[in-house]
Amino acid sequence: MKKLNVGLIGYGFMGRAHSNAYLTVSQFFDLNYQPVLKAVAARDPDKVKQFAHKWGYESHYSDWRKLIEDPLVELVDIASPNDTHAEIAIAALEAGKMVLCEKPLARNLAEAQRMVDAAKKAGTRTMVWYNYRRIPAVTLAKQIVGSGKIGRIFHYRAKFLQDWTISAAVPQGGAALWRLDVDVAGSGVTGDLLAHCIDTAIWLNGELESVSAMTETFIKERPHQLTGKMTDVGIDDASAFLGRFKNGSLATFEATRYARGHKALYTLEINGEHGSIAWDLHDLHRLQWFDHKDEGAMRGWRSIHVTDGDHPYMANWWVPGLSIGYEHSFIHQVADFVNSLDEKTPAEPTFESALETEKVVDAVLRSASSKKWENV
Amino acid sequence: MKKLNVGLIGYGFMGRAHSNAYLTVSQFFDLNYQPVLKAVAARDPDKVKQFAHKWGYESHYSDWRKLIEDPLVELVDIASPNDTHAEIAIAALEAGKMVLCEKPLARNLAEAQRMVDAAKKAGTRTMVWYNYRRIPAVTLAKQIVGSGKIGRIFHYRAKFLQDWTISAAVPQGGAALWRLDVDVAGSGVTGDLLAHCIDTAIWLNGELESVSAMTETFIKERPHQLTGKMTDVGIDDASAFLGRFKNGSLATFEATRYARGHKALYTLEINGEHGSIAWDLHDLHRLQWFDHKDEGAMRGWRSIHVTDGDHPYMANWWVPGLSIGYEHSFIHQVADFVNSLDEKTPAEPTFESALETEKVVDAVLRSASSKKWENV
Amino acid sequence: MKKLNVGLIGYGFMGRAHSNAYLTVSQFFDLNYQPVLKAVAARDPDKVKQFAHKWGYESHYSDWRKLIEDPLVELVDIASPNDTHAEIAIAALEAGKMVLCEKPLARNLAEAQRMVDAAKKAGTRTMVWYNYRRIPAVTLAKQIVGSGKIGRIFHYRAKFLQDWTISAAVPQGGAALWRLDVDVAGSGVTGDLLAHCIDTAIWLNGELESVSAMTETFIKERPHQLTGKMTDVGIDDASAFLGRFKNGSLATFEATRYARGHKALYTLEINGEHGSIAWDLHDLHRLQWFDHKDEGAMRGWRSIHVTDGDHPYMANWWVPGLSIGYEHSFIHQVADFVNSLDEKTPAEPTFESALETEKVVDAVLRSASSKKWENV
Amino acid sequence: MKKLNVGLIGYGFMGRAHSNAYLTVSQFFDLNYQPVLKAVAARDPDKVKQFAHKWGYESHYSDWRKLIEDPLVELVDIASPNDTHAEIAIAALEAGKMVLCEKPLARNLAEAQRMVDAAKKAGTRTMVWYNYRRIPAVTLAKQIVGSGKIGRIFHYRAKFLQDWTISAAVPQGGAALWRLDVDVAGSGVTGDLLAHCIDTAIWLNGELESVSAMTETFIKERPHQLTGKMTDVGIDDASAFLGRFKNGSLATFEATRYARGHKALYTLEINGEHGSIAWDLHDLHRLQWFDHKDEGAMRGWRSIHVTDGDHPYMANWWVPGLSIGYEHSFIHQVADFVNSLDEKTPAEPTFESALETEKVVDAVLRSASSKKWENV
Repeated sequence: MKKLNVGLIGYGFMGRAHSNAYLTVSQFFDLNYQPVLKAVAARDPDKVKQFAHKWGYESHYSDWRKLIEDPLVELVDIASPNDTHAEIAIAALEAGKMVLCEKPLARNLAEAQRMVDAAKKAGTRTMVWYNYRRIPAVTLAKQIVGSGKIGRIFHYRAKFLQDWTISAAVPQGGAALWRLDVDVAGSGVTGDLLAHCIDTAIWLNGELESVSAMTETFIKERPHQLTGKMTDVGIDDASAFLGRFKNGSLATFEATRYARGHKALYTLEINGEHGSIAWDLHDLHRLQWFDHKDEGAMRGWRSIHVTDGDHPYMANWWVPGLSIGYEHSFIHQVADFVNSLDEKTPAEPTFESALETEKVVDAVLRSASSKKWENV
Repeated sequence: MKKLNVGLIGYGFMGRAHSNAYLTVSQFFDLNYQPVLKAVAARDPDKVKQFAHKWGYESHYSDWRKLIEDPLVELVDIASPNDTHAEIAIAALEAGKMVLCEKPLARNLAEAQRMVDAAKKAGTRTMVWYNYRRIPAVTLAKQIVGSGKIGRIFHYRAKFLQDWTISAAVPQGGAALWRLDVDVAGSGVTGDLLAHCIDTAIWLNGELESVSAMTETFIKERPHQLTGKMTDVGIDDASAFLGRFKNGSLATFEATRYARGHKALYTLEINGEHGSIAWDLHDLHRLQWFDHKDEGAMRGWRSIHVTDGDHPYMANWWVPGLSIGYEHSFIHQVADFVNSLDEKTPAEPTFESALETEKVVDAVLRSASSKKWENV
Repeated sequence: MKKLNVGLIGYGFMGRAHSNAYLTVSQFFDLNYQPVLKAVAARDPDKVKQFAHKWGYESHYSDWRKLIEDPLVELVDIASPNDTHAEIAIAALEAGKMVLCEKPLARNLAEAQRMVDAAKKAGTRTMVWYNYRRIPAVTLAKQIVGSGKIGRIFHYRAKFLQDWTISAAVPQGGAALWRLDVDVAGSGVTGDLLAHCIDTAIWLNGELESVSAMTETFIKERPHQLTGKMTDVGIDDASAFLGRFKNGSLATFEATRYARGHKALYTLEINGEHGSIAWDLHDLHRLQWFDHKDEGAMRGWRSIHVTDGDHPYMANWWVPGLSIGYEHSFIHQVADFVNSLDEKTPAEPTFESALETEKVVDAVLRSASSKKWENV
Repeated sequence: MKKLNVGLIGYGFMGRAHSNAYLTVSQFFDLNYQPVLKAVAARDPDKVKQFAHKWGYESHYSDWRKLIEDPLVELVDIASPNDTHAEIAIAALEAGKMVLCEKPLARNLAEAQRMVDAAKKAGTRTMVWYNYRRIPAVTLAKQIVGSGKIGRIFHYRAKFLQDWTISAAVPQGGAALWRLDVDVAGSGVTGDLLAHCIDTAIWLNGELESVSAMTETFIKERPHQLTGKMTDVGIDDASAFLGRFKNGSLATFEATRYARGHKALYTLEINGEHGSIAWDLHDLHRLQWFDHKDEGAMRGWRSIHVTDGDHPYMANWWVPGLSIGYEHSFIHQVADFVNSLDEKTPAEPTFESALETEKVVDAVLRSASSKKWENV
């Protein structure tokens, strides 16, 4: 089997999820290329060494530029904070590498556009880690929409609810909490959580045309983790928007980190002429499906336990009834990416197609600021 | 419209539920006879007067024999404790009245048999208040089984779980707590709760052939409410049995008043060749339905919200989505009884058909005592 | 017991729900006044006669003015279509009657304001049938918010989803389908469904300050039921808005009749600092409650089965575990209204307090048209 | 880090699950020994070679005796069909190896007893793969019971429902379907599914004393996969029992492969004096918990999303709200086993403690045959 030499940048939460995907994908999926954990780069020399050892990376760097210069590395995977995406990606693309990048693509639309331009110029394969597309239940939703079973779509609504920043004592900034630091993250829940909802929505229901948004920062000042000083909070704690899709359906979207009792409740629902679909991340192995064509008195929402051999990706795992978890979405994404390498069509979403999500994020933030409807 | 003159005996929980059914049934169902609240009888003269006034009963008695002697009363409805059922029913039948009786029919099989004999001799209409048959979702389950949609049945399981007697301080006996007094009740949860499960099971899945049972009394002594003295507890606090239905399917049944967190959780599930049905009383307006004939990847348990115009009884109520409650099962039972009066076939279950449930109850108690399988 | 003589106008869906409340409230609640079904008025002389007979109204009129002139009638209850509310209510108030009115108060804010003015002038008791406040689970939510258990509120979201007008063949207008006729209804789902959500929200979370809304009419033309001619549809089929409450919390609201699989799914959720509450009408007897003060590893959303004696209104009904239905909310509202008659403070919502909902409805419709944020 | 050299026997469903555990455990748990995939043995030389290559086993054998003779192998892991367990385990123990064995320990009590005797004699570490103990939600249940939060236990009920053998066309025997061949499997659902339920029950609630059981074989003849001939079915398709635990609580257990709509629905529920616990494998990342000590009107079943850092094993995985799957229970079991190696107390269940489950399985099968209560 041919090899695919991977160089990872970043060893946080996402660095682990990606590494696990590269490590185990070959045992469960038939691939033309076996991912090899070639190198890892991150700022702290001791920690990156330890990480490399734990996961079996053959080499490690404390400067990501070294990793890009490493001729053995074919694919650069960016799992570091948002403020590094553009610089690293463009350098890697200029070095002729394939580039995978964590979402959101960048801190803002301008950065993202530059990355897309670099990708076009380089002509190498790119992909953004919008991993929820590869949760089997979500992939099944895509198949249902594609089959025409739900007909004309009237409504698409999505929410991403968390509750981990409610305490005013949570600091911002630093390695662990960069998501609260607007300079690093670019935005708050809009880029972090809504971006996931938007990516899935575009995939399932097509592009958005216009939005009217509202954002809020409930806690205005937080101690900075590095300096200890009280610092203005620049991110949005909550973000919601109304919108219109190009296909005429209506959008209602919301994300927040102030919804007590919800850890990572990403929910989506689609209402069509003949049926409806609903899904949520807290029970990621189920898909809710309502089929109006069922016999009248027997109609009801079906709770599909998406663990059967005829469900997307599931024949590669265990037996019916036994569920897989969050991390498997990354494994599926690697499998799809690797298997696309010998094909003409790239695995989605590429940098270019992920730019559409950045455009919506940008319109949302513009609208929240202008208090007007904004076009995407 | 013709009238149906009702005489009620007992003004407790069931006396209220029945009175409400007689009072409101005509506003929601087209009937040939309008029930008239003619008379009520109960031991306490003041309370029965008050009850009569509240509900609009035209007369009241503190001696049930007077009510039976009242020539205006056409139908005697027995809502008093179990130890009074046989005597009152037989007297009423001998007086040529129609008789409705709360469940269980009697304290034991011998009493129940005498009531059935009296009913046969009298030739008047009888009915037992196994009201759960008329919860729309349960009636829908009956229609599904009858339609052949589920095919050969393999399993029938039912539970009735409560938690109100866990404290050793709950007394037994007296007006409110006669259900804990074996002399009045006949048995504990077997006659009180399992009897409901058994009635529905026989209705949906046919007769039982044999059982192996286990009962337990967790609290062995309780203060008697009237005397205050610690008294041995004679009832079963919990009762469970395995069984075989005549159609070859297997039975697993359980009832208890020691299941924390369950107030009145009556659940039933039927597993057949082509489909399965499940229902529970805590969400009585829903029926769970699994259809194996659905397309493979789209199979799932459907949660049917049984509130549509094409669902049993529901066209008589509000609009789709708006649920009715527990008490409506009594209204439906009155409607069915009244509408059967001009027909040849009586409304079910009659005393005679309810005897089958008493036989199973009897076999369960025999088996719990003999520690052997017992035939019904 | 003193009497309260009721005159009902309208015998449709709401006429039945109100009549049932007057008929049965005295059997379940201790009241100072017993409602008496004195008179009913509606356009069709035969049908109103039949209705009066069925429910036991002592007299009936085919002209509502006659009912208002009837000196025996103390309270006028308006259950006729929206276009009649203002005229009838003002006439009844001028005649010195108490007036109960179905929601929404009127077709638009101007009409509603005139009704409020008339009520102030008359000085008699008024009430609007926002019945969902009296679903026990919703009342429990009010108690929780009032107790301070959830602390500062960050988010309030509500949806009312139906699916009954998706077919283009559904006509508009006439007695049954006046809700689709803008001249009669005033608006579509905004006044019909969102108004419910807004009333509950104001009750639970205080007043709204500003909104940004979007409405849509998916089916642009429908046959008129009376004329058969294809006619432009003037109502909104779907309506959604973002908003800000005066207490700083964020609002996301949506209503539609184009959400397949949802018959009458009114859901609300409140996220506060220390806890969250959620409820939906399809399982109206349950309240979801998350308490952040629970021990860390044991935290979870509690599904409270609101059927216990210590739950609002429930001690008046059956025993724990046995649920009541939709119609009981009307019974509770009558009980509260009647019991307020001898008190200084009127039962809520009065015409005056319900005007706040009309203001929000008005702001929503204005915003949908202006495509701007509008103040309430 | 020290190494632990593993030799696996069997490459089916369980062989994959175990291999995955050895491969990934070190990346997520801090261990004193790193498992090394040293050797794998299975009958088919080509397939075992392919399997070894896929998973990175350093060597492979088509004769398991060779694997046991391999001096580099320290631990023998038996993932082959039930009829091989005793022979392999005893040989491995005699060779001084540590032995891990798939459940059930053996085909019958006599075989299991011989394995336990051999383990005692060898004095090496053993463990049986009752993996469900290490589902975080189930481990949390164990912690709750241990904390005394639920008090005296009244009821323990468990079910394991599947539906994959309903078609009479499913053959028995051969590599894939040996679970239907009584000579290989020893019994049907009793040893395959009930054994899981019994193991967890003993762990959570202590030993069983006596049982009354019922088994059934719905399909009496099936084609044999190897010969194609119609052959009597020797296994039990369904099995249920009532029982009494030594602590006085009551048991109701059931397993079947004839419950339409259930793929692998293992459910358990415990009712105690102060609280109740429920769990099911179809939503394995949740634990249902009812606490009677909660404030009266606020009591409800809590749905605990067992994905937080303070939940068992979960700090080693992702972030709150992101669930893990079935296979992780094996990873946890390896982690616990490896970490116990330097400790005095072995990881549970050892062969010896797993024998208790075999005794209950034996009593169940005896009772089903004798139609009497049987002591364990």
